[in-house]
Amino acid sequence: MKSDIWIEERHRAGVAARFRIKQVLFQGTSPFQEVTIVDTVPLGKMLLNDGLVMVSEKDEFVYHEMIAHVPVFVHPSPRRVLVIGGGDGGTVREVLRHRGVRACRLVEIDRMVVDACRKHLPAVSGALKDRRATVTIADGVKFVATTRERFDVVIVDSTDPIGPAAPLFGRKFYANVRRVLTPGGIVVSQAESPFYEAEAQRSLLSILGSVFKRAHLYNFSNLTYPGGLWSFAFASDRFCPVEDFRPEAVRGAGLKFQYYNAPLHMAAFQLPQFMRDRYKKLLSCCG
Amino acid sequence: MKSDIWIEERHRAGVAARFRIKQVLFQGTSPFQEVTIVDTVPLGKMLLNDGLVMVSEKDEFVYHEMIAHVPVFVHPSPRRVLVIGGGDGGTVREVLRHRGVRACRLVEIDRMVVDACRKHLPAVSGALKDRRATVTIADGVKFVATTRERFDVVIVDSTDPIGPAAPLFGRKFYANVRRVLTPGGIVVSQAESPFYEAEAQRSLLSILGSVFKRAHLYNFSNLTYPGGLWSFAFASDRFCPVEDFRPEAVRGAGLKFQYYNAPLHMAAFQLPQFMRDRYKKLLSCCG
Repeated sequence: MKSDIWIEERHRAGVAARFRIKQVLFQGTSPFQEVTIVDTVPLGKMLLNDGLVMVSEKDEFVYHEMIAHVPVFVHPSPRRVLVIGGGDGGTVREVLRHRGVRACRLVEIDRMVVDACRKHLPAVSGALKDRRATVTIADGVKFVATTRERFDVVIVDSTDPIGPAAPLFGRKFYANVRRVLTPGGIVVSQAESPFYEAEAQRSLLSILGSVFKRAHLYNFSNLTYPGGLWSFAFASDRFCPVEDFRPEAVRGAGLKFQYYNAPLHMAAFQLPQFMRDRYKKLLSCCG
Repeated sequence: MKSDIWIEERHRAGVAARFRIKQVLFQGTSPFQEVTIVDTVPLGKMLLNDGLVMVSEKDEFVYHEMIAHVPVFVHPSPRRVLVIGGGDGGTVREVLRHRGVRACRLVEIDRMVVDACRKHLPAVSGALKDRRATVTIADGVKFVATTRERFDVVIVDSTDPIGPAAPLFGRKFYANVRRVLTPGGIVVSQAESPFYEAEAQRSLLSILGSVFKRAHLYNFSNLTYPGGLWSFAFASDRFCPVEDFRPEAVRGAGLKFQYYNAPLHMAAFQLPQFMRDRYKKLLSCCG
């Protein structure tokens, strides 16, 4: 009889997801978290940090296309992009598909994530070898507080607001993100589950709205994140992600996407009523 | 020590969801399926047919609002509505919130589902007591083949295309659905997961496109259906769900929704690129 091995993600009290696995490819404990890469039967290889699913080969295109192309297509001339977190490299890969982007710096706190993904998830991490990419192993909070570099787009590709990523959901961090942005620059951040994490979303939107002139949420759905819907936050002093979005820029780029497209870009900002009601005064953009 | 009881849904090969439960409220085997109602810790009471999650109290509003209000708001004068399947009553509840609807007939094959939901899920099934509602325990396939009644909107609120619901995904069934529709009437159907059920979606779209002049898919996301995204199919000889949708009808109705709203109605028809590519020739509406 064949062995029947499963990995289980207990993502909320009383809710769990299980995936059958072929083998465990990597297990390590860094100073920040436990890092695991497994090869699953249904979804290809999968990265988990502290037991929570970060990336699966089968659906990572959803998350990475939606976190990268929304801000990069809204900004009229995104030359320099900063990615904080996202050590798997998938966000950098999507950013660098834009030929106008001259430099993309990844600042990841946990070297183990980058090394394990370089080795076991090359389809995700491969763009880290691009000559326009620079990998900096450092604390993103300290980086934005001290760097003299400036960026047109900052993407906060963080884990959940527990453990190493908790400060990435704070006000001081976002004041410094604004500091490292060129005038009118855009920040997009991983913004948790609207069903399960109302308080984290409210706090993030409130902080973004106090630091930037415009703040909004947009949604996507992938296979592996619990609760069906998941959100990103968009903030800028200048650009509205809907009104300042030019669909012709998407056509002009000539890129092939699996999830993203111009109508979906605009549709993603149309929130379910429970989100509109809940965040009414905090959504300071897109009507 | 407290007992730690979980229910597990094995919804695809190698993928499972688990929910911690307080107690099992109902378990029965009908001629059609196993019917289970449990009280879960995270999501309230939950109905499962043959071990697959149908409804949870915490998120059923998403499914029921999106299956009901999209066709009922697109149709200019929906007086008579037929719901096939949906024995929990949630779809009937949403349909009957429209004051213009004079009659809503539910045709459910499995009396056990209706009885168990009447007893254990009154917040979902309560509208079945409405004087405009009629519950018919019958095979929906036979009903549409033989009835002399006509309906402005037909909603196919089916389980998956295995077991008792399999014929509800067939061509003959939809030819008869068209037969019982008033001219230009609308049918909306539960259309499975775009990530996991490409073939079921393709088959359904192909059938709808051959029977009706216009066919399209729209998406929603709830907490409990596997794979994040889930689809409904919309078909009609006359109405386009986007171009013929009048947002002012939503405002005029004065209803309070938790998920549905007018911009989201239109956004739901903007499909991810992998769905547009996959069903290019089968999406015969909305550009």
